[in-house]
Amino acid sequence: MSRPTHADPVAPRRIPEEVVLLSAGPGDLELLTLKAVRALAQAEVLLLDELVDPGIVELAPQARVVRVGKRGGCRSTPQAFICRLMRRYALQGLRVVRVKGGDALMFGRAGEEIAFLRAAGVPVRIINGISAAFAAAAALGVSLTHREHCHGITFVTAHTADHGEPDWEALARGGTTLAIYMGMGRIGAIASGLLRQLPAATPAAIVQAASQRGERRLVTTLGELAAIATAVLEPGAPGVILVGPALAEAMAWHGGDGVEAGERTALDCMRA
Amino acid sequence: MSRPTHADPVAPRRIPEEVVLLSAGPGDLELLTLKAVRALAQAEVLLLDELVDPGIVELAPQARVVRVGKRGGCRSTPQAFICRLMRRYALQGLRVVRVKGGDALMFGRAGEEIAFLRAAGVPVRIINGISAAFAAAAALGVSLTHREHCHGITFVTAHTADHGEPDWEALARGGTTLAIYMGMGRIGAIASGLLRQLPAATPAAIVQAASQRGERRLVTTLGELAAIATAVLEPGAPGVILVGPALAEAMAWHGGDGVEAGERTALDCMRA
Repeated sequence: MSRPTHADPVAPRRIPEEVVLLSAGPGDLELLTLKAVRALAQAEVLLLDELVDPGIVELAPQARVVRVGKRGGCRSTPQAFICRLMRRYALQGLRVVRVKGGDALMFGRAGEEIAFLRAAGVPVRIINGISAAFAAAAALGVSLTHREHCHGITFVTAHTADHGEPDWEALARGGTTLAIYMGMGRIGAIASGLLRQLPAATPAAIVQAASQRGERRLVTTLGELAAIATAVLEPGAPGVILVGPALAEAMAWHGGDGVEAGERTALDCMRA
Repeated sequence: MSRPTHADPVAPRRIPEEVVLLSAGPGDLELLTLKAVRALAQAEVLLLDELVDPGIVELAPQARVVRVGKRGGCRSTPQAFICRLMRRYALQGLRVVRVKGGDALMFGRAGEEIAFLRAAGVPVRIINGISAAFAAAAALGVSLTHREHCHGITFVTAHTADHGEPDWEALARGGTTLAIYMGMGRIGAIASGLLRQLPAATPAAIVQAASQRGERRLVTTLGELAAIATAVLEPGAPGVILVGPALAEAMAWHGGDGVEAGERTALDCMRA
């Protein structure tokens, strides 16, 4: 069997298999979609990000598992190596499933992987998932866009890699709820930036390990956010920061006590 | 009907059952989560929004089905009636599943329903789902937040109900990809507003019926968006509008031809 390009003398003999970019959601494997579960069942190679629950491999019993986490362990796996690995297996005709946390199309570097595979002639199929901020809102029992408070939501990373610091003041001016990913290590700077535009009394929350065992929720105000987070949350653990009037519903529900970081709380009635 | 306050002599005798706010995703029932499927299997009453695939009732074989769509038919069901219905069934001890399209916590009016049920002493559990813009991005084969182009994404409605027109210029200044819901009927005004801040060459796309049979994709520029949408898309059909440099990846993939609204396209290789 040959590839559709005739000129390439080292073209592989098999038609490349598609690579599935599979979104594993926020952590709880019950939040996988039916489509994701079916793709996992057929996977022959699984490339796993290290933030994904390792239990996911049980859903892919035929698959060779390759761990390509970008954090933890001794060293992160370079992005270029992950791309080449996917290409190699796909060109061997193997069904490759690349598993990413949350939704692969938001903050997952899927853009780079899609572009690489596309250039290599490897078809890509994308399976959506639940991004962490949605699970955080479910844990807090709030709409991210309560009609009385705002007309939308902005998801940003605090990462500075390619674009410098996000313009917190401009983002705050947009009038949407803010969901900030990968910001726990820079929470002081983020809060300061937002406080240049928003009142200190603006409701704010942090959810760590949303949907997972060990989920932690903190509900406070923007003015207190950085100090309370530093005092009560586990340093270094990832979390989603939510800021905006829509979060007032989470606060009211807590009876206005502000902080919520214990094991069992009134909130837990929401999670059955 | 009675409420769970102690002063009320006709308080119900049973502990109210929880109401599940269930997110049905963008349309394809394969994008339901495992958690949603399990909740549906146990449902005794199903309250269905009219944008949800009616086939979902087959996943809830024990349930009495109540259609409470807000559009279509002769008249929309008033929100207050839906709330009272959920309360009534829950106080009868029935397992109520309220099904909403997309993710219930984004543009789903879940905030009002949660507040109402909470006030009535009815526990609420939320099950997340895939919002339409994620499915739209999967259909286009693009990341919503390609690192080379932006540091985030803003989801807004073009609805003016409580907050007037969103400030398109301010939203554009935030530097994020924009995903605009419920904007098809006002696409001219939206494009004009955005063009006050963004270059006419800014990539833009519309996806209608994302993830469903009959999905339609249009990839163009902000400058051409309104005219092309009016010319080639079905008027009145809902769709997600995406605007921002991250959409350039969808354009490049189309070979720069701009419009994509046919039945089968090169893109379809992405959807297997």
